[in-house]
Order: sequence, then structure tokens, then C-alpha cells
Amino acid sequence: MPSKRHKNRLHNPIYDIAARVIHQRGYASTSMSDVAKAAGLTKAGLYHHVASKEQLLYTILDYGMDLTDEVVIRPVQALGDPRERLQQMIERHLRLILQERNHEVTVILHEDKSLKGAMRRKIAERKKAYIRFVEGLIREVLKQRGRKDIDPRLAAFALLGMMNWCYQWYQPGGRISLPQLVRGMTRIFLGGIVR
Amino acid sequence: MPSKRHKNRLHNPIYDIAARVIHQRGYASTSMSDVAKAAGLTKAGLYHHVASKEQLLYTILDYGMDLTDEVVIRPVQALGDPRERLQQMIERHLRLILQERNHEVTVILHEDKSLKGAMRRKIAERKKAYIRFVEGLIREVLKQRGRKDIDPRLAAFALLGMMNWCYQWYQPGGRISLPQLVRGMTRIFLGGIVR
Repeated sequence: MPSKRHKNRLHNPIYDIAARVIHQRGYASTSMSDVAKAAGLTKAGLYHHVASKEQLLYTILDYGMDLTDEVVIRPVQALGDPRERLQQMIERHLRLILQERNHEVTVILHEDKSLKGAMRRKIAERKKAYIRFVEGLIREVLKQRGRKDIDPRLAAFALLGMMNWCYQWYQPGGRISLPQLVRGMTRIFLGGIVR
Repeated sequence: MPSKRHKNRLHNPIYDIAARVIHQRGYASTSMSDVAKAAGLTKAGLYHHVASKEQLLYTILDYGMDLTDEVVIRPVQALGDPRERLQQMIERHLRLILQERNHEVTVILHEDKSLKGAMRRKIAERKKAYIRFVEGLIREVLKQRGRKDIDPRLAAFALLGMMNWCYQWYQPGGRISLPQLVRGMTRIFLGGIVR
């Protein structure tokens, strides 16, 4: 289970607050004044911490990827069995985007298209590395089961889509608990709905 | 197969052009000047067609739902077998968001959160009706197979997530053809990756 003890590398609540504001309003509609206001700072005070709105977004997204490394990738890589690795990845990814204290820093990762140049490339590269990681986990399971009829890259995108869509509809505290969500997604992805 | 013969109820290319601009830039970052320019109109000329930017968005999203009714819901409802209905729904939904001539009007449906009041409620209600439709198709398949271990509502969101995520990564003309995509998604959702 992802714990709350992971080290917050930023040590700066401004980034969490900014992530929340950007998540609610969208990056394009968020002004530095909005962020300053939410953080209880003057605009000048905010610029003391970050040079620009783009730099702010980059720092948050880079931190979102650090958190993914820490809460999903490293603990999963420590496991041996392919199926167990995949199951743990699903559980940890869902908890990361829905429950972790800083979950907004991961749910706004699609905002990387608002970045330009080197900052945009760096985040895109980290996201690609994560997709390759998920694809690798799936490939191992398919290999173990001798299944050659499923493309692991396509399956990785299917799984990430299933999971990442959750923040569009999932209501924490609603009819479906987080363990039920994890179990349901795992069952569908691993076992399908027919057989 | 969704055909190109469905009736375009709008008969106005401005909406297609506006949908494309909003898809590329995001609704918040799109100005009426951007839309006018893309459509080869003056701003005054554009306001001759639509009263406001919000009205423009509403009209596009409502049309996106009309298209979904026409290209997915009605043809699927004409089929008898539950599994065949579900398979056709997957194929038609994927073609609608990735290949239909007006596909941008459906891929910007998440922008409904930029609407307010009655317009927002109307689109949200149509989206909910579509989710219930998908959930109903899945419920029938689960019933036919005697499976009680999967929540049809959760499965509907998993399936919609898998499919709707495609426009984030799928490259038409790339390594994976559309028929391969349809087959892969169908196989994973129906049969899972393990058994």
C-alpha cells in the first residue's frame, strides 16, 4: 500500500495548492493571482518562489513523476512474481491518483501539453518511461501465460485509460470503495468480463 | 460500421471548425477571434451565427451527443444478442471518436464543465444517459454469463476510460490499425489478459 511516509521532495505547500487550483480551473484559466490568493500570498510573494507560471507547472509535473517513481515504480520493481507486480501496480496507481495526499500533482499530468521546449520534452520523456514500465509488466504476464494474441503496448494504454479515467467519475466515500475499485479494475483487466 | 451517410443536423461547417480549434487549444484558451479566423470570418460575422462563446460550446457538445445517438446507440439497439451489441458498441464508439468526419465534436465532451446552469445540466444528463446505456449492455452480457462478481457500473466506466483515453495516444496511420485497436480493446475487455 502506498504510505504517507514518502519523502515530499518539495517541502513547499505552494506546489500542492497550485496543483489543486490548476486541477479545478485548468492551467490555461489559472492566473498567478489565483495561485497567490489560494496560497495566501501576494503576487510578488509568489514570484519569490517561482519565476513564471510555466516554471510552476513544470515543477509540479516533475514532482508528480517523482511521486509516481516513489509510490508505484520502485515498490513494484522490488517484487518477483509478474502477476503480483501487475496487481500491485494497479493498486498503487489507483491509490496515487485518487487518495494520496498530493494526488492533484498527478491528475494534472495531461497539462504537459501547455509546456514548451525542454520542459515539455522532459515531462513527456518521463511519462513515456512510465508507459514502458507498465507495458513491461504486462508483457511479462502475457509471456508467463503464453498469450501472443494481445499487444502489450495496446494493453498498457487500455489499462492506463481505465485507471486514469477514474478521476473523472470516481467519488471517494461514494457507493464504490477504493478496495472495491481496485478489485474490480484488476478483475476486468486480468480476467475480462466474459470468461 | 458507422457510415459517413449520417445526417449532419447542423449543416454548418463553423461548428466543425470551432470543435477542431477548441480541441487543439482547449476551450479556456480559445477566443471567438481564434474561431472566426479559423473559419475565415470576421468576428462580427461569427457573432451572426452564434450569440456567445458559451452558446457555441453548448451547440457543439449537444451535436456531439446527437452524433453518438445516431452512430452508436440506435444501430446497437437494433441488434439482438447481448455480446454482439457490446462488441458493436465498442467498435462504433472507437470509430466515432477516432475516425468520424466530425470526431472533434465528441472528443471535446469533457469541456462541458466549462458550461453553466441549464446548458451544463442538459449535456451532463445526456452523458449520463450514455453511461447508463453502456452499463445496460454490460449488465446483459454479465447476466447471460451468470457473472455476479463484476459491478456493471464500474465496468462501464472502465470500458469508457479505455476507449476515451485512445485520443490521447492513438496515432491514425501508425503501428496499430483501427481494426487492430478495436479487436485488442474488445479482447481485453471481454476476455481479460490472463485466462
